[in-house]
Amino acid sequence: MKNNFTYERSPFYYETDRMDVIHHSNYIRWFEEARIDYMKKVGFPYDKMEAIGIMMPVLSAECKYRSSVRFGDTVVIHTSINAFNGFKMEIQYKIYDKQTNELRASGSTSHCFTDMNMKPIRINKTHPEIYEIFSK
Amino acid sequence: MKNNFTYERSPFYYETDRMDVIHHSNYIRWFEEARIDYMKKVGFPYDKMEAIGIMMPVLSAECKYRSSVRFGDTVVIHTSINAFNGFKMEIQYKIYDKQTNELRASGSTSHCFTDMNMKPIRINKTHPEIYEIFSK
Amino acid sequence: MKNNFTYERSPFYYETDRMDVIHHSNYIRWFEEARIDYMKKVGFPYDKMEAIGIMMPVLSAECKYRSSVRFGDTVVIHTSINAFNGFKMEIQYKIYDKQTNELRASGSTSHCFTDMNMKPIRINKTHPEIYEIFSK
Amino acid sequence: MKNNFTYERSPFYYETDRMDVIHHSNYIRWFEEARIDYMKKVGFPYDKMEAIGIMMPVLSAECKYRSSVRFGDTVVIHTSINAFNGFKMEIQYKIYDKQTNELRASGSTSHCFTDMNMKPIRINKTHPEIYEIFSK
Repeated sequence: MKNNFTYERSPFYYETDRMDVIHHSNYIRWFEEARIDYMKKVGFPYDKMEAIGIMMPVLSAECKYRSSVRFGDTVVIHTSINAFNGFKMEIQYKIYDKQTNELRASGSTSHCFTDMNMKPIRINKTHPEIYEIFSK
Repeated sequence: MKNNFTYERSPFYYETDRMDVIHHSNYIRWFEEARIDYMKKVGFPYDKMEAIGIMMPVLSAECKYRSSVRFGDTVVIHTSINAFNGFKMEIQYKIYDKQTNELRASGSTSHCFTDMNMKPIRINKTHPEIYEIFSK
Repeated sequence: MKNNFTYERSPFYYETDRMDVIHHSNYIRWFEEARIDYMKKVGFPYDKMEAIGIMMPVLSAECKYRSSVRFGDTVVIHTSINAFNGFKMEIQYKIYDKQTNELRASGSTSHCFTDMNMKPIRINKTHPEIYEIFSK
Repeated sequence: MKNNFTYERSPFYYETDRMDVIHHSNYIRWFEEARIDYMKKVGFPYDKMEAIGIMMPVLSAECKYRSSVRFGDTVVIHTSINAFNGFKMEIQYKIYDKQTNELRASGSTSHCFTDMNMKPIRINKTHPEIYEIFSK
């Protein structure tokens, strides 16, 4: 699939650690920010999704750290859907330095869709209109 | 009131910032940890309270920072109820270095009690048994 | 003083808590974001300040919570310098809902200026050009 | 290698999100807590390591989420070194519910060792005594 959206972010001071870099755990949070920004841009905002009773819990997350992001930098996160079969969705993220275009980190998360009781649902069956948004 | 409980905590690496100290926002989170530990110790754990439909939102929070806490330190937080009239509760916190007994920070939070729709309740009327726990 | 700058922010999913509101500790972090945005806008970015050997630790922070911010909302934070004598600076923050203009929270932080060894400095003596930026 | 240490942790309220579970990003932070606890227990505390000029940046992190951890639960994290060649170290984590022994999540992080300028070092050459601690 070819969807590729970008999300820009200036790291916050409170995200630094005493190595004077952005603490690695925050990249996982940035992935979520980029994912939610992506869903808004394709026309299916996360809060609307939860409002109609669908949740999208994280099944796995991973990140490879290439070079440090520091306070004062700006990063651009490229987000794309890697795989989606109506049941499980894999999303890929690449974090670039805005100024140098250097790759800082890359990673992915995988998700299923559930109802409000955390019971998995096949979104292609239950909500084909949502399935189409993510698979186009 | 004389209740005074202590809560011990070793700062986490991810709580440091690039000034090589614990980021000031974490003290507000430590206050919450100490408060929840306090409630457990007086016999009314927070998760039990929420399970019977009572929430305890924060109305205000403040902290005065005297000297820095660093990674590798251990702190001891003294928690006490300053004022409680069945409607509004004020809790005080003092953060000491475990080794030197130096005061690192002090602060307070104020709270009301609400039902699950965030509607304030007078706990001395609705749940006198809880009122007694906190006012003894 | 009349400086009044605004900083817009959409809360992140990871900032919510199980009461389905933005956790109160994040407001203290938003104050920092707004403060750093403010300093950038008046022409003295925080990373430049630290690069020339000045730090601006937090002496105190306080926040009054009026009504909850929720995921899906957008807030606008108004930041202004309340008092500054070249030694101690007090900054005020007001958090409004972007759509309804309702005041969600207000608070303040106070700061001193230090060298890299955390020794306080009188910025009006040591760096009059910075003093002017903040007191104009 | 057989080292296997456990680290116990009660989730904090501020770690919950509006799905009423612990937000997935916090598991990456718990891995760090468990790792630092591990290093303390094998006799080489992280702050001592940094004090002699060695840092241990994260090269990669990944987590598989099996079932949710909730506020009120207690988890036990099993930490072990999977692989270590004096240059790169891989650490594995398994998060169990303390009461039910159910596996909640598992993951790993990989690390290199660097000097204070973030230049990688071969710890088996530069600090054989540290190498021995981690490879025993």
